[in-house]
Amino acid sequence: METEKFDISIEGGTLLTMSAKMEIMENATIGIQGDLIALVGSNCRIQAHKTINAKGHLVLPGLINTHTHLPMVCFRGLADDLPLMDWLNHQIFPMEARFVTKEMVYDGAILAMAEMILSGTTTFCDGYFFENQIAEAAKFCGMRAVVSQGFADFATPDNPRFEKMMSAGIRFVERWQSFAPMITPAFFCHSPYTCSPKTLKNVKAAAREAGILYLTHLLENKDETDTIEKRYGRKPVHHLLDLGVLDDQTIAVHCNWLDPEDITVFADLGVSVSHNPVSSMKLAAGIAPVPQMLKQAVRVGLGTDGSASNNALDMFREMDAAAKLHKVISLDPTVMNAPSVLKMATLGGARVLGMENLIGSIETGKLADIIILDMNQPHLTPLYNPYSQLVYAARGADVKTSIINGKIVMENRRLLTINMEKAIDNVNQIASHILSEHPSTILKHPNGQGVT
Amino acid sequence: METEKFDISIEGGTLLTMSAKMEIMENATIGIQGDLIALVGSNCRIQAHKTINAKGHLVLPGLINTHTHLPMVCFRGLADDLPLMDWLNHQIFPMEARFVTKEMVYDGAILAMAEMILSGTTTFCDGYFFENQIAEAAKFCGMRAVVSQGFADFATPDNPRFEKMMSAGIRFVERWQSFAPMITPAFFCHSPYTCSPKTLKNVKAAAREAGILYLTHLLENKDETDTIEKRYGRKPVHHLLDLGVLDDQTIAVHCNWLDPEDITVFADLGVSVSHNPVSSMKLAAGIAPVPQMLKQAVRVGLGTDGSASNNALDMFREMDAAAKLHKVISLDPTVMNAPSVLKMATLGGARVLGMENLIGSIETGKLADIIILDMNQPHLTPLYNPYSQLVYAARGADVKTSIINGKIVMENRRLLTINMEKAIDNVNQIASHILSEHPSTILKHPNGQGVT
Repeated sequence: METEKFDISIEGGTLLTMSAKMEIMENATIGIQGDLIALVGSNCRIQAHKTINAKGHLVLPGLINTHTHLPMVCFRGLADDLPLMDWLNHQIFPMEARFVTKEMVYDGAILAMAEMILSGTTTFCDGYFFENQIAEAAKFCGMRAVVSQGFADFATPDNPRFEKMMSAGIRFVERWQSFAPMITPAFFCHSPYTCSPKTLKNVKAAAREAGILYLTHLLENKDETDTIEKRYGRKPVHHLLDLGVLDDQTIAVHCNWLDPEDITVFADLGVSVSHNPVSSMKLAAGIAPVPQMLKQAVRVGLGTDGSASNNALDMFREMDAAAKLHKVISLDPTVMNAPSVLKMATLGGARVLGMENLIGSIETGKLADIIILDMNQPHLTPLYNPYSQLVYAARGADVKTSIINGKIVMENRRLLTINMEKAIDNVNQIASHILSEHPSTILKHPNGQGVT
Repeated sequence: METEKFDISIEGGTLLTMSAKMEIMENATIGIQGDLIALVGSNCRIQAHKTINAKGHLVLPGLINTHTHLPMVCFRGLADDLPLMDWLNHQIFPMEARFVTKEMVYDGAILAMAEMILSGTTTFCDGYFFENQIAEAAKFCGMRAVVSQGFADFATPDNPRFEKMMSAGIRFVERWQSFAPMITPAFFCHSPYTCSPKTLKNVKAAAREAGILYLTHLLENKDETDTIEKRYGRKPVHHLLDLGVLDDQTIAVHCNWLDPEDITVFADLGVSVSHNPVSSMKLAAGIAPVPQMLKQAVRVGLGTDGSASNNALDMFREMDAAAKLHKVISLDPTVMNAPSVLKMATLGGARVLGMENLIGSIETGKLADIIILDMNQPHLTPLYNPYSQLVYAARGADVKTSIINGKIVMENRRLLTINMEKAIDNVNQIASHILSEHPSTILKHPNGQGVT
């Protein structure tokens, strides 16, 4: 009788399944066959071509980042601590108009993926210019991605004539839809204030026809309500509701100023939300009413946003901020407890992306997206409660090994699909170019004026 | 002619001096002689017995943690996400009464120092029971410490008869005062609600006589004002003012509910503040009005608080939280800019501890407390602005080498004064003991009830 031989086994760790039952298994064994989790057990031994010893480690599903603009790593730290409109209109938009090219997008995305893998993310949902390049980079790095083709009623670096955006979008979907569930195409309307009602509706109609997700930034800042009310006589959520673009295939990003009535609309229609606390804190944009959303069973995932506003792509930082920000704002330490927050970063994110049957937990039959953390470190000692430890004490740098779709992409902190030195060099060259040409007042080393 | 030979040179890095002028030097050279910074220059070569190549690295003063309860690492993650009074009265206080021993304090402190050195802290200010043990541990590890003997009007694990606290305190000062500026003794009155007016006054008188710092927790929570007003007919700050214990040798810890009038009192009298944003966020205790304090030139340093409430001792997390929390609360992204926050964690902390002439910046004649970060990593690329990168993107784990008082205590992430494995083992044994004996409802692995 032949013994079944798995491709990979992970043995001896403490497994947080993050399944609906939140099962935790000691001395766990996971058997991976191809791209699938084929066996989950405890206190058993299996045969495998490759065995990973996880004794003293935590094993959990890879983290899911529901909102990124990856190539913005090239602008990381370039223009911080500025008033929002200065930052956007005088720094970010002009720099994007000047420096965003196909090559910059690809090189930036590769560096961003190195950073994400090194900090435990296995799936991301991106929206930027030249999104084909992001998809190509994800394919190259072996990361799972939802890639969103962007729409706005102005010319963008990749679509100098915006009337061609729809045909470009349809070509984009045709090109990538057969790569799901590794690469899943989607459409991203930038926002209700940069997209006309016609654009918002047409893109949603095309998304429905293609059976893909539809994303939009929504209510990141307080003044969006005024802008939309002045223009359309409706609050933003009601504006989108009237246009018929809200449903369970729509993801609204940020939602810092959602009011109780808006939350009910989202709950009724199944609209999901990407919560980006770190970016919204740094930009002083606002605080999303996440505990209230969760009470009404709105699906909420976590996201980092781009590196110009965060400035990291580390989901451990995001979990930490999400847990603590809502506690102090509500003056209630029981909200957003550690297990809830870890769930938001795993199965919650999978639900937002419509992939909860495929990823987000470690269960037999799901795709093998798994991370392993070394807990034998001073800042992770002692280990009473793995959820607390992960949310309040662990850092991205504690992720030791990462598996995506059954392939090991990082082992003992060494990236296996990305040449890290080259990725760093390429972005450093882009940065040198930006510094040498950018006409504005960027200071490489501000002198600390205004420091108290 | 003999060339001067330094003990240590650090060459080729980008130096953030954090001096009053916030000078930044490229290709910097630092010469260390004994415990002192003997030379600071750029584009020069010196002879030294030991040369550290810092090319591609940032070099800056070691971080100063102005508030810790180090042995609480033993309770890290044991009781999170609970209502504050449950946490304090049903978890922390009973556990301290049951498990705090001299050995637990020493072993916990050693692990905490490993964590702090590994994340860039070179000086801390601690208050706990058996503070002699903390001082001994700091001496052993080579960390710079302000160690505070505690006072409260109830029996504590180290002073079962509280009437003996004053004589114990005086012996403590006598024992350690000759070790300054490595070990500097201080007195810590727990709070205005656990210390009688008599205790607050007598301890301050003794601190004045000994010429040492006087610390107290103040206004961590909102209800402290009610408690003190009911008991003494005064707001807490006015209560302390009336008692004459507020001066420029007093450090008030937390100050989350300081009102504008209180801030003016602090500014007039030179009282300084330890700001602990992460702990106060997690406990949902409140948000200190730090931008307002800084406007009135109140000295403010950063601190982590204990690991039961934080749950880390990582000053990089603290800087990140301090910068972003105040932005989002004020809806103003310009407050608490990155250089200000880094200053708060270095020279600002030194000012709070009355050590600004000795540490907190890299200048000739100061003590050699220096950390070196490896910036050649994806999440730290590109490097436009070192302040932004340190506050918004770096993590404790990026600190590669650390020097305290002219001695290398960590090199290439390897601790040189602490046996890390042993430190971890010792605290794991304490944790096993707590888990086996603790009578309450601690769950090693909560089942995630209430998870949404």
